[in-house]
Amino acid sequence: MSEPAEELARPTSTTRTGVVTIEGGRRRRRQDRLATEEPMEIRVDEPGGVQRNVAVTMRTPGNDFDLAVGFLFTEGLLDGANQVRNVRYCAVPREEQHYNVVSVTVTRALPEFESSRNFYATSSCGICGKASLDAIETRSEPVAPGPEVSAEVLAGLPETLRRAQSVFDRTGGLHAAALFDAAGRLIASREDVGRHNAVDKVIGSELLAGRVPLSGTILLVSGRASFEIVQKAAAAGIPVICAVSAPSSLAVDAARRFGMTLIGFLRGERFNVYAHPERIAEG
Amino acid sequence: MSEPAEELARPTSTTRTGVVTIEGGRRRRRQDRLATEEPMEIRVDEPGGVQRNVAVTMRTPGNDFDLAVGFLFTEGLLDGANQVRNVRYCAVPREEQHYNVVSVTVTRALPEFESSRNFYATSSCGICGKASLDAIETRSEPVAPGPEVSAEVLAGLPETLRRAQSVFDRTGGLHAAALFDAAGRLIASREDVGRHNAVDKVIGSELLAGRVPLSGTILLVSGRASFEIVQKAAAAGIPVICAVSAPSSLAVDAARRFGMTLIGFLRGERFNVYAHPERIAEG
Repeated sequence: MSEPAEELARPTSTTRTGVVTIEGGRRRRRQDRLATEEPMEIRVDEPGGVQRNVAVTMRTPGNDFDLAVGFLFTEGLLDGANQVRNVRYCAVPREEQHYNVVSVTVTRALPEFESSRNFYATSSCGICGKASLDAIETRSEPVAPGPEVSAEVLAGLPETLRRAQSVFDRTGGLHAAALFDAAGRLIASREDVGRHNAVDKVIGSELLAGRVPLSGTILLVSGRASFEIVQKAAAAGIPVICAVSAPSSLAVDAARRFGMTLIGFLRGERFNVYAHPERIAEG
Repeated sequence: MSEPAEELARPTSTTRTGVVTIEGGRRRRRQDRLATEEPMEIRVDEPGGVQRNVAVTMRTPGNDFDLAVGFLFTEGLLDGANQVRNVRYCAVPREEQHYNVVSVTVTRALPEFESSRNFYATSSCGICGKASLDAIETRSEPVAPGPEVSAEVLAGLPETLRRAQSVFDRTGGLHAAALFDAAGRLIASREDVGRHNAVDKVIGSELLAGRVPLSGTILLVSGRASFEIVQKAAAAGIPVICAVSAPSSLAVDAARRFGMTLIGFLRGERFNVYAHPERIAEG
């Protein structure tokens, strides 16, 4: 058996994908580049053979050793470079995970850290984008087909959100998430310094009102569309997600797999459709 | 003893603060509004008297019950609204924490969740912004005084970062962090779908090169400055942080307390200084 490291292509920081650009009723298929998003698990090997799974972060591959060591240091777990014996990718049984697990061997044990709010606990043995998708698939219902949405309605959503936002955001520091019906009418909007929180507030509000699953609705986020945004929308049965900025590679993979329409760079008449364009009415 | 709930002012979604605006060598003191950032702990009370501390998230106060329920639902812990008996702020001994702990009483126990990457574990009893600042103070050295930085150097940093970034980011989906010396020379820049990761990559790279603490340096982030960005910079001894967008209230509190200069809305000749303007040379 050969070393997985020799066979595997290292994940790259950008990922090519097909996209449909819609502008003024015309559709054009083209190739686009997305920022790659993949989970990375940070492990620490302590003296005495103790291995600890410290954190999992969604990251763009590249400079992974810097990320592992930087994270441990800035979170107060590592005193300095002299505590690091070596850093390596962790050989794990499933090849696809090889470059998503980084192990830092330290010369002294880390302090106890379970009380910090910064750590994402994991008990799994390695993780990869596909495993993340499998995990959602297990727990979410498939998103229902429909609705049909017109390009004109989509083009108008950011302006509707901005009008709703201007009431609240005088700081320039808030992310917004808004839910619309298929005709573009605003159902709810929420703002937060955390973009996942803005989405959770919108969905939580609808859940408490007894309106989940949110079939037939459109979610708009003011920034980028990450994997976690798509995951949260999938849990609530939202069929259409629009982002004012770019989606990540894993956000697109998730939307394609769960039958959700994913739109990026929605800034007026021109936008990109990364997944399931069939919900957008032919102009 | 009276109820804390009756005495306490509820935290608001925006926070007033003093700021120094610098433009073309002139300084003007004025009042500004920041997005409030405070930690919120989500607890679940299960039948049989079992209380679980599920997560702590940095959030903007407001719609906190929606956030708690939305988070539990979108992370797959809650089946639906019918599993929620009630939602309330948790009475905790320290008054300042009252509105930062939300307890969701459920009719059925949650599934086991320690294997998910989405949860921030906490064993502490409640949390607030001040407690977060205390935690950093315990573990970080005070940031050293200096360097003196000119407004011209600061004004040029975003353009230097953009030139470095254009090599990598053809996707529009990446956050950037860059480290400069006091003369504005680029030391390192990194990009990631996660903005905290971009900062960890820069700091980790310098740590492995033996150059931490990073006294005399300037950190620039392409987006907003959150509490966690300031926390990470403090751990590395970085004295000046610049953000292209707005800082949060807790980012400003942290920078003031730890002697760090914090600049926001750095987009050329005009910018705001939220903490320790004394490092900026009088034009």
